[in-house]
Amino acid sequence: MKLQNDLVLRAAKGEHIERYPVWLMRQAGRILPEYRAVRASLSGFKELVETPERAAEVTIQPVDILNVDAAIIFSDILVVPEAMGLEYQMIEKTGPWFEKTIRSWDQLKFIDESIDVNDRLSYVLEAIKLTNAGLAGRVPLIGFAGAPWTIFCYMVEGRGSKTFSESRKLLYTQPDLAHELLSRITDVTIAYLKAQVKAGAHMLQLFDSWAGILGDEQYNEFGLKYISKIAEALNEVPLTIFSKGATHAIQSIGKMNCTTIGIDWNSSIVEARKLVGESKTLQGNLDPCALYADHNEVKNLTIKLLDSFVSKRHIVNLGHGVYPDVDPEKVKTFIKTVQDYEIKFN
Amino acid sequence: MKLQNDLVLRAAKGEHIERYPVWLMRQAGRILPEYRAVRASLSGFKELVETPERAAEVTIQPVDILNVDAAIIFSDILVVPEAMGLEYQMIEKTGPWFEKTIRSWDQLKFIDESIDVNDRLSYVLEAIKLTNAGLAGRVPLIGFAGAPWTIFCYMVEGRGSKTFSESRKLLYTQPDLAHELLSRITDVTIAYLKAQVKAGAHMLQLFDSWAGILGDEQYNEFGLKYISKIAEALNEVPLTIFSKGATHAIQSIGKMNCTTIGIDWNSSIVEARKLVGESKTLQGNLDPCALYADHNEVKNLTIKLLDSFVSKRHIVNLGHGVYPDVDPEKVKTFIKTVQDYEIKFN
Repeated sequence: MKLQNDLVLRAAKGEHIERYPVWLMRQAGRILPEYRAVRASLSGFKELVETPERAAEVTIQPVDILNVDAAIIFSDILVVPEAMGLEYQMIEKTGPWFEKTIRSWDQLKFIDESIDVNDRLSYVLEAIKLTNAGLAGRVPLIGFAGAPWTIFCYMVEGRGSKTFSESRKLLYTQPDLAHELLSRITDVTIAYLKAQVKAGAHMLQLFDSWAGILGDEQYNEFGLKYISKIAEALNEVPLTIFSKGATHAIQSIGKMNCTTIGIDWNSSIVEARKLVGESKTLQGNLDPCALYADHNEVKNLTIKLLDSFVSKRHIVNLGHGVYPDVDPEKVKTFIKTVQDYEIKFN
Repeated sequence: MKLQNDLVLRAAKGEHIERYPVWLMRQAGRILPEYRAVRASLSGFKELVETPERAAEVTIQPVDILNVDAAIIFSDILVVPEAMGLEYQMIEKTGPWFEKTIRSWDQLKFIDESIDVNDRLSYVLEAIKLTNAGLAGRVPLIGFAGAPWTIFCYMVEGRGSKTFSESRKLLYTQPDLAHELLSRITDVTIAYLKAQVKAGAHMLQLFDSWAGILGDEQYNEFGLKYISKIAEALNEVPLTIFSKGATHAIQSIGKMNCTTIGIDWNSSIVEARKLVGESKTLQGNLDPCALYADHNEVKNLTIKLLDSFVSKRHIVNLGHGVYPDVDPEKVKTFIKTVQDYEIKFN
């Protein structure tokens, strides 16, 4: 089906755009009353993730309500470790929790040697198909996965953490085991992302939420190496790499086989542009907290961001997922400001 | 009293040193069984902080047991907001909790207009005196405080947080209130640090634990501005500024009235040196997780860090506080490796 609005794809590829495209990380879920209504009708977050019809419904909501230029499939990065054999629970107000963790060679037995993502993650692929049917070509649909390092952190730690010291410990005490686990995650992630494209994803994003807890050298060895492997394996659709908190990695990502680099709100878009030149599209990076300001200030802060761009290779987004208590009307102001902004470059 | 080992002070001032000095953030507390024994004999963390004899005892422990080149007073950055009027509890496994928070002009009434730090924080000052008496000039004693932005975060949020979105919200919605609160924290902090010096602190450190959650521009306005004000007001003893996670701030701190810059483990000492030249001493930055490796590897990683130095303006430390489950024997290996290392510069 031909897309009616393919701005985000053209922006990713560095092609001509009439205006900057805009969407929000975490736009599906969290802030919309319409999402909360769907969520309240189910037993919890995981049921929503695992029910394709409902996942598709909440994926489409922000397109209808907020007028974003792209949809992103409602899912979770933790479906991958679960598909590999580590079941998780999403505990209200606490976050994810894995009963089993991988901290020794012996515990590798908890994960399956080889899995069929089309089987184990069929619910995501089905949700992608249903979403595209519902969208009827209005906007592109973004698929995603966690980057291997971040998934590794959850599989080793078993939960969220401020320091992820168990995960980082493994890099010093059992680097071979760390590489083995990262390789396995990488293989599954490649298969999973390819399956998402086959199911209909028009674009992909890798989220490396815990990139920022490693120093340069370790992030190169245990993070970027595997991201690069994934990027090399994917050539079908535009790919965004978002290594949160790893400003030092922007230059390296600039040399990878991807179209777009996600920039978090504490990094500078201007500095990032200096580091990567015009070789990549930059995505971001309004501070999610800026949406707490009044409408006029939201507009000013958005324009200030847009005015800082020195080319048209941009997809506008927040620098992190939208916060749950943000007023959707403020989000609309942000989106409308971007969409009304006159682009200054050819 | 003349100090027998003043290496850390000479290193801070860029004077001649025979070898690199070394100490660890959080060396007092956490890892030592001797600390846990003291702690277990009391009702909790706060009683220890507020009992000068016991605080002095655990401050001296790492000098006796680990042979570090400096002591740092056992205390907490939250004694400042408490002295200002916001009482806190330290909840086991959860962290600090404040019943009252400051999110409106009206709530400013929860804090006192002007306080006498010599009265309200007399227990810290007394602990400093007792520690120096116990140390008998063996090593210098470091005093410290939280930087205004970090203290602000706790006063607004009332607890730890992954995003500190309430605190950051205030910067957008009520910047004048934010500046008022930051100014008041700054004034108290200056008085408190001066009182610590008067009580006997040989050196001072400002900890900005949450520096990394702000972008460049906001950190300049709401963070560095107040740190600079504190640095300008203090000329008595060497001052270290540790803005955790704010690599982008290193250059600005390099121009401040301080002797030393703390570098966290995800930043690069080599890059930091390029940014500040030889104008400042750098403190850090072994990854705390490196101490999970075996003794030989701890030694290798320490030597690798020392080999990366291009001058003698260094105080060796971890890039963050030592983690609670680290084996004290590994800490000794780290310390001994630094102390045995032959310095290559005049």
